[in-house]
Amino acid sequence: MKLNAEQRRQFDEDGWLFFPNCFSEDEIALLGIEAEDILKTDRPEIWREKSGAPRTVFAAHTFSEVFRLLAHHPRLVEPLQQVFGEGVYVHQFKINAKTAFEGDVWQWHQDYGTWARDDGMPEPRAMNIAVFLDEVFPYNGALMLVPKSHKHGTLEAGHDLLTTSYPLWTLDKETVTQLVAEGGIVAPTGKPGSVLMFHGNLVHASPPNITPYPRKIIYLTLCAVSNHITKFTRPEFIAHRDFTPIVPVGDDALVEYARAHRIAAE
Amino acid sequence: MKLNAEQRRQFDEDGWLFFPNCFSEDEIALLGIEAEDILKTDRPEIWREKSGAPRTVFAAHTFSEVFRLLAHHPRLVEPLQQVFGEGVYVHQFKINAKTAFEGDVWQWHQDYGTWARDDGMPEPRAMNIAVFLDEVFPYNGALMLVPKSHKHGTLEAGHDLLTTSYPLWTLDKETVTQLVAEGGIVAPTGKPGSVLMFHGNLVHASPPNITPYPRKIIYLTLCAVSNHITKFTRPEFIAHRDFTPIVPVGDDALVEYARAHRIAAE
Repeated sequence: MKLNAEQRRQFDEDGWLFFPNCFSEDEIALLGIEAEDILKTDRPEIWREKSGAPRTVFAAHTFSEVFRLLAHHPRLVEPLQQVFGEGVYVHQFKINAKTAFEGDVWQWHQDYGTWARDDGMPEPRAMNIAVFLDEVFPYNGALMLVPKSHKHGTLEAGHDLLTTSYPLWTLDKETVTQLVAEGGIVAPTGKPGSVLMFHGNLVHASPPNITPYPRKIIYLTLCAVSNHITKFTRPEFIAHRDFTPIVPVGDDALVEYARAHRIAAE
Repeated sequence: MKLNAEQRRQFDEDGWLFFPNCFSEDEIALLGIEAEDILKTDRPEIWREKSGAPRTVFAAHTFSEVFRLLAHHPRLVEPLQQVFGEGVYVHQFKINAKTAFEGDVWQWHQDYGTWARDDGMPEPRAMNIAVFLDEVFPYNGALMLVPKSHKHGTLEAGHDLLTTSYPLWTLDKETVTQLVAEGGIVAPTGKPGSVLMFHGNLVHASPPNITPYPRKIIYLTLCAVSNHITKFTRPEFIAHRDFTPIVPVGDDALVEYARAHRIAAE
């Protein structure tokens, strides 16, 4: 999948792009079943909410063939190769569960703030490209983005160790208020299989999910190979140290896997 | 304001009705300025979030002429007189602030659950009619309603004294999941001045507001006079004991007040 000139312009201007229905129902069925199976397990890569519900599964592409294929999928990898103009590697791979009733807040932050401070990533030449595994409604913890906020560079942040179970470099109210006054808020919603990419410096957050609808999103973080991290303060499964450029699999890799293993949408 | 036959049918069926832009910009400017002035004060009728931010102002119609006019406004009073087929009195009057960044969750509940258990209200012949003072977006803590849930009567509930600063009779996850599977969720959004009425047994909730946009809503709770409360366990400013039927003011009462006091939208 390649971005056209208008998409490139829009990304530069607003810092995000949304692709509804980028993966098919069959592909999402496969990913969804695999995610549910993993969420039922207990392993060190699964971080939990204060309530005990799973919050984030890290590095599932290292222990699940299905997610290995996703992390190498051309619909996710190619746009980021294109934007960075070079090969990319997997910096992080997350399944954010935002479980029904228990999914907690993600405070206002920039991803690159953490990658720079904790991982010594030289430049904001890495970003998330996210796949909705569940339908994102306006009310089940939709991700909120502040358009144009990526133009402000890396903003001052405080290390919030208290609000949730997950430490995060977060922005203060005054900064968020100023940025929202300029760019507003967008909260893309859509069917499972929709894809969202956003700049590493784009300010974002998501509220708790108090509904019965889970809101699982996979975040694949790809980094330009020449921009690899230089500090190894976090566990390897949170900030990977294998900087080998990704060679994308075929566009039909997930469909072929599902066919071979007889997994299909109901 | 009178409901037509289709609105009556829809209310019976779904348990809620929404009236966009029911109050004018000038009327909302008056109400908004008055609410902001009150929120800056410190008085026993103002309950606070755990953070200290104002959560709910009770009984402003007893100490503010502007809100006295609103509590007697025909656009709010007449539809409820019509539904109950008799005179109504003010059971409760709230300004729910849902302040920017700090407005906390309202857990899943039925209003009548509290009015019955705490106030000894005989029947669910009371309800809220709410006025948006700020724009309600999908992402600043919009109220979520479960259509048709009012048909299930008064559901078993637990008294949640911990989650927020405000004690509430709340529903468990299994109950909410079942009701949402049947009726879905709606989260009406709209400009300041929009009005929302919903059945006393309609299940609803609202998530925290983590945006810079405040989401003030006024909740006027009117009760059929013959259905007045019988237990006085809560402070008078939370559950009123004056059961005199409301005589509505003129439809232009707020506009006249604003004109007389030279208060206008900017």
